[in-house]
Amino acid sequence: MKLREFAQQLGLSPTTVSRALSGYPEVSEKTRTRVAEEAARLGYRPNINAVRLVTGRAGAIGVVMGRSGEFHFSEFMSGMAERLGTQDIDILVSPMDEKATKGEIQLYSRLAVSGRVDAVIVHSPEPNDERITLLHRLGMPFLVHGRSETDVPHAWLDIDNEGAIHRATSHLLDLGHRRIAMINGREGRTFSLHRDKGYRDALQQRGIPFDPRLVAHGNFTDELGFRFARSFLEQTPRPTAFVAGSMMTALGVYRAARSIGLEIGRDISVIAHDDVFPYLTPETMVPSLSATRSSMRAAGARTADLVLQLLAGRSASEIHELWPVELILRESTTPLRQS
Amino acid sequence: MKLREFAQQLGLSPTTVSRALSGYPEVSEKTRTRVAEEAARLGYRPNINAVRLVTGRAGAIGVVMGRSGEFHFSEFMSGMAERLGTQDIDILVSPMDEKATKGEIQLYSRLAVSGRVDAVIVHSPEPNDERITLLHRLGMPFLVHGRSETDVPHAWLDIDNEGAIHRATSHLLDLGHRRIAMINGREGRTFSLHRDKGYRDALQQRGIPFDPRLVAHGNFTDELGFRFARSFLEQTPRPTAFVAGSMMTALGVYRAARSIGLEIGRDISVIAHDDVFPYLTPETMVPSLSATRSSMRAAGARTADLVLQLLAGRSASEIHELWPVELILRESTTPLRQS
Repeated sequence: MKLREFAQQLGLSPTTVSRALSGYPEVSEKTRTRVAEEAARLGYRPNINAVRLVTGRAGAIGVVMGRSGEFHFSEFMSGMAERLGTQDIDILVSPMDEKATKGEIQLYSRLAVSGRVDAVIVHSPEPNDERITLLHRLGMPFLVHGRSETDVPHAWLDIDNEGAIHRATSHLLDLGHRRIAMINGREGRTFSLHRDKGYRDALQQRGIPFDPRLVAHGNFTDELGFRFARSFLEQTPRPTAFVAGSMMTALGVYRAARSIGLEIGRDISVIAHDDVFPYLTPETMVPSLSATRSSMRAAGARTADLVLQLLAGRSASEIHELWPVELILRESTTPLRQS
Repeated sequence: MKLREFAQQLGLSPTTVSRALSGYPEVSEKTRTRVAEEAARLGYRPNINAVRLVTGRAGAIGVVMGRSGEFHFSEFMSGMAERLGTQDIDILVSPMDEKATKGEIQLYSRLAVSGRVDAVIVHSPEPNDERITLLHRLGMPFLVHGRSETDVPHAWLDIDNEGAIHRATSHLLDLGHRRIAMINGREGRTFSLHRDKGYRDALQQRGIPFDPRLVAHGNFTDELGFRFARSFLEQTPRPTAFVAGSMMTALGVYRAARSIGLEIGRDISVIAHDDVFPYLTPETMVPSLSATRSSMRAAGARTADLVLQLLAGRSASEIHELWPVELILRESTTPLRQS
């Protein structure tokens, strides 16, 4: 059955039917429900292209997924979902075959030319990021979550990672700590480089020499947090404070300290970065955890917002948003004990 | 530019170009890359419907997302991604507007008739689930992750929640515990009902009366784990053992015990259900956590597998898969101390 024919049977215009089926909000919920039910009843399967020709939209935003252990991903997605749910726009997740990561760029290319998405989100960029060049070249609207120095105009949203870790490290220095260990994210990503810079600059401003033996990089897991922290604590002299890259990392640091009889908030101070997960909160940890705080969910919601603006015609070069990060002090940070 | 014209310029058949663009694996990676690059270079935007007419597929599997705090979601998605990444099939995530949950059924309806997905995954079903009836009526292939008593043929994959909690509770009873608290998931979901049954049956088989004051339901968060556990531990006599519905819940139980000076693995025994997260592992907890174990990621990968079988023509009534759950004992469970 053709769109025109189906619309006629419903006594609606093809435009209204198309809009109802593509889910854009110009059509009332009641009409959309009716169109969907009648489509099911009459066995009408929309010709997607006809729908797209009318609305000019695919009705979906593309995301590539694949890095293992990305517990941030679902929070970010939930944020996007919060914003897009009210607009009936979908998220098309393109899974990446991790064993063939060289195929990543092909995946973005495929997503961009498939006609199935109106825009693409780029996550965890590197300073020089091939994905950004590609999407720009293909003329596909996109937004970068994070920052990159890639030299083409692009919209981005990022938190101030450098400022956050600078503030955390400075606060630990204010408390008298001198050996401060830093458990950072994966090497090479811009956010990780920014955090390294915040840490180094804070030390340098107090004339504390940088000690590479006190810095580790890796995925944000409690296991790596535990292993790195154990190994740092076995050094002589051992660190008296930690900057932990995530809540999961902090769980590992807590356990490592406890496993060798050290007490967090007395023998060891900890500040973690908190992405504000609904299922793991620094307030309820024992002792409660001091943290730099910025919601991954809020970033997802705002990203969706900005993508909608991009699609409405706002220029990508105008969309540069840097979020400040607050430091919330709780029981896990205390002045250095003189021994 | 038409598909035929574009294919001609590349010296390929329209079928090959369509398959390359829709991502199905009959076409070599090299050809797919070439087609994508040429499409970008020549400004060719595929007519999705033409592609679909050739392959007969949308090349995507649909999932509805929306329940807040679903940290399981990203693990399950990663599992699906592992399996689908090698096939270049996408996952279309339809965000649900949580403030209008009555719209959930419309969302499934829209997804099913949109022509944008080849199959749909239904999560966390209820015993009588309207979504299942709907998808069956619409003739949309679907797979239920979890179980339902809804009386239409449907494919499902589930873990043995009842058996897992029965085993955990029985083991705690074997260790001499009599007041065993149970922190379960959201009320009304089948998995939650199955777990309740496993718990009650284990008690009944030993002649221990069921005490509703020892059971709580809610989302799996460390905060709820903490609050429920604190409130249970304030009862007289207090429980000496806990069955915790998730790793996050267990973190809360650990903290609640510690916050009032009780030691896990000595004063209090804990068994949790472990979905096998890469970022939070029971082995590294202090003390290490005894757990019923079943990987959410493996379930996602297998679900993708089964959906592909469904699309290849296997009957939904043949796809009923129940996974046993193992119990792994570690330091958090010890015999009841006589006081």
